[in-house]
This record gives sequence, C-alpha cells and structure tokens, in this order.
Amino acid sequence: MDTTKDLYPSRTSAPTAMFERLDPVVYGNADQGPLSQEQLDQYNRDGFLFFPGFFNGQTIGSFVDELHRLCSDRSMAGRDDVITEPDSQEVRSIFQVHKHSDVFARLCRHPRILPMAQQLLGGDVYIHQSRINYKPGFQGKGFNWHSDFETWHAEDGLPHMRTVSCSVILTDNNEFNGPLMIVPGSHRYFVPCIGETPENNFRRSLKKQEIGVPDNDSLAKLIDQAGGIQAPKGPAGSLLLFECNVLHGSNANMSPYPRSNVFFVYNSVKNTPRRPYAAPDYRPEFLSERGDFTPLRAAG
Amino acid sequence: MDTTKDLYPSRTSAPTAMFERLDPVVYGNADQGPLSQEQLDQYNRDGFLFFPGFFNGQTIGSFVDELHRLCSDRSMAGRDDVITEPDSQEVRSIFQVHKHSDVFARLCRHPRILPMAQQLLGGDVYIHQSRINYKPGFQGKGFNWHSDFETWHAEDGLPHMRTVSCSVILTDNNEFNGPLMIVPGSHRYFVPCIGETPENNFRRSLKKQEIGVPDNDSLAKLIDQAGGIQAPKGPAGSLLLFECNVLHGSNANMSPYPRSNVFFVYNSVKNTPRRPYAAPDYRPEFLSERGDFTPLRAAG
Repeated sequence: MDTTKDLYPSRTSAPTAMFERLDPVVYGNADQGPLSQEQLDQYNRDGFLFFPGFFNGQTIGSFVDELHRLCSDRSMAGRDDVITEPDSQEVRSIFQVHKHSDVFARLCRHPRILPMAQQLLGGDVYIHQSRINYKPGFQGKGFNWHSDFETWHAEDGLPHMRTVSCSVILTDNNEFNGPLMIVPGSHRYFVPCIGETPENNFRRSLKKQEIGVPDNDSLAKLIDQAGGIQAPKGPAGSLLLFECNVLHGSNANMSPYPRSNVFFVYNSVKNTPRRPYAAPDYRPEFLSERGDFTPLRAAG
Repeated sequence: MDTTKDLYPSRTSAPTAMFERLDPVVYGNADQGPLSQEQLDQYNRDGFLFFPGFFNGQTIGSFVDELHRLCSDRSMAGRDDVITEPDSQEVRSIFQVHKHSDVFARLCRHPRILPMAQQLLGGDVYIHQSRINYKPGFQGKGFNWHSDFETWHAEDGLPHMRTVSCSVILTDNNEFNGPLMIVPGSHRYFVPCIGETPENNFRRSLKKQEIGVPDNDSLAKLIDQAGGIQAPKGPAGSLLLFECNVLHGSNANMSPYPRSNVFFVYNSVKNTPRRPYAAPDYRPEFLSERGDFTPLRAAG
C-alpha cells in the first residue's frame, strides 16, 4: 500500500457514511479552452456535459467501420483485453483501442475533444484507459450503478478525482437499447463501498460488478437529493463528457440493435497512479496505464 | 395430451418458422361495450390500448394501500403463490390476488374495466390468473421478451388466443423503473419456441424465463416490420389492456422507487383450458384457473 494519505477509503469491512468530495470538480477556467463559463458551471453542478450530434454522420461512419473491423478481427479473440458477454462469446468490450487502432489513436487526440479534457483537468492529460463497448442487440446486459473513480482509486491507485471520461456514441441511443444513465450531482459525494477486493477481481467485475458498488441507501439519498436520474440520449455522433466520480449505470439492451460507444478516460499528468489503495495488486495495464504518462498532443 | 388439434405447436425440438395467428384479435364489436370502433381498430392493429390516468389519485391510493398490506403480510411468506426476487427475499409477485383480497376482487369486476374485457373477447369472461408485481427499487430484475399466450397454451392448455391482460399501474412508470415494453403488431404472429418444457418449469420461469422465449431472429424481424418498441408510461392509475400474444418484456428497475402493478388476465368462458399442449403436467392452480369458470359480473 502507498504511504500517501488515502483521501477516499473504500472496500471497508464496516459501513462508512458517504462524505463530500475533497477535490475540485473543474480545474481550469473559461479562458483555457473551448468550454464556456456556463458549460463549466454546468459540469461542476451536474458532473457531465452532453453534446448531441457532436460529429456528423460521415465522420462517425468511419469510427463505426473501425469498431466493426476490431470486433470481427479474429486475431483479437481470446486476448485479455477483449471481454465477452457473461452468457455468450459475443464481444462486450475491447480495451486500449487507442493502442490497437490508428483511427481511435487520432480520435482521442481530436482537436475538438482533447482541449476540453485539458481544460476540465487544468493542463496536460494522458489516457488512463480506453475501450469500445459493443453491447450487442438483445444480449447486452446492463451495468449496476457505480462510480468509476471508486475503482480507479481502490484498484488502480489514482489518488485524486482529476479524471474525465469521454464517450463518443457510435449508434443511436434510445430508451430501449440500454443508454447510459447518470445521477446528476452525485459526483460531489464519495460513497465508500463495503467489502474487500478479491484477487483478480477485474475478471469478474468487467462482466458484472459486485464489489465497489455503492449501498442502496446512499444511492437512494443521492438520487433523491441530487435531482433524479438522467439518460443523455441522442443520435450516433453525440458526445458525453462525465466526471470520474459521477454515479452511472445502464440497463440491458432490449432492442435488436447494438448500442456501441467508444470511451477515453483522460487523467491529469499530476494524478498518476500510486499503489492501489484497497486491492492486493495492480490491475493489468490494459485497464490502467502505468508505463506511459506522456502528455497527449492534439492531432493535426 | 389433449386430442384437440394443437393450433400453435411450441417447445419444439427443431426450429419452426413463425406464422400468422389463426384466431381473431377482437371478438366483439363497437355496440357491445365501452370501446369505440377506433379503439377496437387500434387494439386489432397494435395489440394493446393504453389509458393514462384511468383512475384518479384517491382511487389508486386505496389499491396501493392494499398492495402494501399484502406485501408486508407475514402470513403470506413462504406460500407457493408468493414469488421472491432471484437474489433476495423481497417479494416480486403475489398471485391470485383476486382471491386473497376483497379490494382486488372488486377491482377485477370494476364496471369500467370488466365490460372492456367482455367486449374484446366477445362475451362472458373469468379470471385465468391474477397477480401483483411489486418490482422493488434497484432490486427489480427485468423480464425477457415473451408472449404470455405461448406459455398459457403450452403449459396451461388454453386452446385459442381469446384472452386479454389488464394492468393497473400502481406507481408512476418512467423510463428508469423498468416499465413494460411492447412490440406493437407482434400479436399477429405466433413464434414457436425451441426446447422441451422441464418438469415444474414454473418455479424457475417466474423468476427468470428461459423456456418459451422466442428466438432472436424472429424477435428482430417482428420489431423491424411491426413498428419498433413502445413503452406505455404514465402516472399511477394508468391502465393497460394487452392482447395475450403480444410480445412484451421489461428492463431492470434502476430507480430507488418500486414499480408496482396489478394484473388481471381475463379469459373467454369459450376458451377454458384443455390438457397442456406441450408440458408434462398442469401448472399449479394459482397460475392457471382450472376449477371455477363462473362468468364475472360487474361489481355494484
């Protein structure tokens, strides 16, 4: 375990009450990037920003082609960073797509995206994790409510909340194909989760998360006080930025159509991982970058 | 097995293509009840009718009180007709509530409801099954897509599609608490399902249905051709009538609030059960009335 003080103890043996976060939400200001003061205020309050139709159809088409290419690439099968559905061999997620694919390597450095991440986190950033979620028709299971930061802190050793996820929506999202659901305002509180982290927890948690899940009472309280639940839905090409500690989840895909997204997790270079705060060992590098914290530069 | 010709073979060992239904959808006409010709046409086309705010808040309050009384009644625990969630002891459904409760006995004979069922089915009806679904906050799992008729035919022996379900919504339904989803127009086709019915299948299928579930290709085809998916949502007190063969399902309840409904299944007295068409034995009477086909009369 790291000797650095653990600001956000979790995976505790006894229940611990939730408490207000100890880190800022927004690190930069309106002069330092494309987001307006109003957008920064909104992100500060809600923990997310949604941009319907951020990319047009033609642009998004090339990302969708790349998704299909990767998901049907037989040389990817059986790799550790390719996760299949709990009940079938269909691809659920592929990790570190910014390393597997030139297309996604450029996308995470996109001149309309990267500066927003730098502005929110106040300076240079690198990719902590990237993935595509395929979520096939009918078969796509949901994700329970959770804070990403809770896992990235407990299992990956990120010390502070200074991380933002960017989701580019590759297929139309509607109420029937399991869109992401968010509890606006929940990022302002940290909910310590009960239960020790088992060894190699990630193998199970990527399919169905059962450790690092907030208790129902805290969840209900946050949903009640913070303003309910929202599901940002929109056409393919929409973009969602969400704060690392905002509670989110999703339901099963009841439609015949896939619900596919590409995720980039930007972390501040001032927030690189220590030893895991509440796990016996590191998770694999495909889940948590440990070797290369070179600041990203915008693609030309 | 009954010697009566099986119009809708299911639980087959080899895949069988879906086919158009052999029974009418609407048995009565506009002169025989409260539903207009337009409403009958809509039911004929879509397989359901939704009435937002059918009952006012005060009326629905008395039904909600009765729901809570039954769900917290310790003398109900452990009964065969009380179904708990797969992962907990929380009540998921209580069956034959029209026998357990005077309030629900009157509700299924309500002078604004019963005549609609009689009109759709062309004459006298009785209750084939009744239940309340409690669907607690967070814990409520979903139901896979299915046709109720497929089970009522294969496992209960109802020969024809001459049955209608009535759901009275006891809590506000929204996109976050797992509302019922319907494939409009799917009631016009019968999808034979693969797989023999195991003994006492109902013990499992009431928690998670895996037998009698249509194949994904037929589902996708019906969703594509028939007009997508609809989720009739509305305030507590809304009422839904849906045809016995319309495909429906629901997602998990992601909200802290329960999603509770009361269901009555009205069957025509001309459609009483034969021997099960594709199961080794009858299901218990709490799922499938076999003793009392006395026509219901409207409550005063």
